Amino acid sequence: MFSKRILHIAQLGAVGVAGYYIGYKEKINSLNNTVVIDGKTLKSMPGLPIFGTVSAATPYTESGSPQDRISQIMKYGFPSLDNVRSYDDFVLSYDRRNRVPNWVFEHITKGHVMKNDAVDRSKCDFKPDESIHPFFRSQNSDYKGSGFDRGHMAAAGNHRLAQKHVDQTFFLTNMAPQVGDGFNRHAWNRLEKHVRKLTKVYDNVYCCTGPLYLPRKEVDGKSYIKYQVIGANTVAVPTHFYKVVVAESPDGSLDMEAYVMPNQKIPDETPVSSFMVPPETIERAAGLLFFDKIQRSKLSRINGKKV
Amino acid sequence: MFSKRILHIAQLGAVGVAGYYIGYKEKINSLNNTVVIDGKTLKSMPGLPIFGTVSAATPYTESGSPQDRISQIMKYGFPSLDNVRSYDDFVLSYDRRNRVPNWVFEHITKGHVMKNDAVDRSKCDFKPDESIHPFFRSQNSDYKGSGFDRGHMAAAGNHRLAQKHVDQTFFLTNMAPQVGDGFNRHAWNRLEKHVRKLTKVYDNVYCCTGPLYLPRKEVDGKSYIKYQVIGANTVAVPTHFYKVVVAESPDGSLDMEAYVMPNQKIPDETPVSSFMVPPETIERAAGLLFFDKIQRSKLSRINGKKV
Repeated sequence: MFSKRILHIAQLGAVGVAGYYIGYKEKINSLNNTVVIDGKTLKSMPGLPIFGTVSAATPYTESGSPQDRISQIMKYGFPSLDNVRSYDDFVLSYDRRNRVPNWVFEHITKGHVMKNDAVDRSKCDFKPDESIHPFFRSQNSDYKGSGFDRGHMAAAGNHRLAQKHVDQTFFLTNMAPQVGDGFNRHAWNRLEKHVRKLTKVYDNVYCCTGPLYLPRKEVDGKSYIKYQVIGANTVAVPTHFYKVVVAESPDGSLDMEAYVMPNQKIPDETPVSSFMVPPETIERAAGLLFFDKIQRSKLSRINGKKV
Repeated sequence: MFSKRILHIAQLGAVGVAGYYIGYKEKINSLNNTVVIDGKTLKSMPGLPIFGTVSAATPYTESGSPQDRISQIMKYGFPSLDNVRSYDDFVLSYDRRNRVPNWVFEHITKGHVMKNDAVDRSKCDFKPDESIHPFFRSQNSDYKGSGFDRGHMAAAGNHRLAQKHVDQTFFLTNMAPQVGDGFNRHAWNRLEKHVRKLTKVYDNVYCCTGPLYLPRKEVDGKSYIKYQVIGANTVAVPTHFYKVVVAESPDGSLDMEAYVMPNQKIPDETPVSSFMVPPETIERAAGLLFFDKIQRSKLSRINGKKV
């Protein structure tokens, strides 16, 4: 039986995170209630226009239009406003310098993850997103022969309401290079399954996923950020990946979980909970603010601990 | 006497750039005329709101307001729309992950660079910008003891119309860590002086400045992006810096120059022109599009060569 509340406390020194640091630990508590996006422009923006244009807010109507779906996905705030792209069932911000997303946002319910015979993942093809300027567009050829998987940020298994939805998760804008064996196909997949399982006990699950480039102290005593780039378009291979999840209970209470996993082979027996970290550590490292429409003090639990 | 047209051709293998590569050389010519920003939203945006909020376009009037100055600085387009901050005499996009700017835009004329006894640089203090969320704000303490200068992107000497203008160039949002001896105080300073000198022969000089993080091939045959980070806020030390300049002649013709300098000691005798690179190489590496309101084919010269 799936346990609703994860009680393990984050072990920052867990498998593979060792050697890297996220830092800033001393400031986290004092800043718990100060997570507001600078400018606050999103508070009054009901829907995000398609394909990253920025325009005046339009009247919000429950018409079942794609804009309504985007409002639902982004209900609790945009982590940033850089090169936003809206798809039918997820929203992302694209990092034009690194040719991978900054963040990918999903809203998941029981219905989204349920088996659906009308939807077939094997019919999907990885494809470049032509809406990205050719200077910054990643291509299948960048990944070919690199040794890395094209790793989904919005998981294909979270978008089973329509074939078009799962198809769109195969846009390369939704991908980042991931170690295949022991990570994308194993530990990361277990984390994705954990998020899907949350829909069994929560009505709504909001999931933000993305890459991290974490510094590491070298023998000269200095800290460096170092990551491989692959292919002609120099697609960045993130050192780590994060997921920040907010799950809404039937009674309206909100629980948050935040995970960082190193982009490397992780032993099978490592529990998902050992990758929990304070959400602020991800925000500082990523340059993003997650769920900024929710005051952290209004959350019921963070990483299984009462707030 | 200052020579108006620089005739030297860019030498990508020049001092210190060796070992790094920018790549993509094969695609440059065929894409020369395709530099358009995806979404094209800026074409209809006359002025940028203060402090990075994004709002509907307001009617453009020549009232001498700060918005008008910003419209003038950004006349030829925004390189990106990520965390834009407007100051009285320059505009920048802040990289919240790296705690340095993505780009800083200036509009410079003879009047801006002229000696002005009412303006005293020595009265200026380096100061954090409180408009940046504390998670992402660089501090003087980050630079202290790091061995790096707080290097201006918008040069102090380009903003001599008012004390307030030069004061604002000392916000840490306008800084990036630069090697002091042989770079910030020498080669980079010579490039800044070169840009100022352009105002002697051009009516208007538009200058975009920023950092680069260029990949380098290592002994394992793979390419890596590697850069130091300094201080408690892990401020990125860019591997290189760029300047892309468009200069408007009295007859309205437009000349573009584009430079990349490595963030390291550069021999005194190295001519500024040896750091010229095709602007597209900077755009690809930075994830930015410069002067996208000007079709490249409409330029008279790029790096001193007729287009």
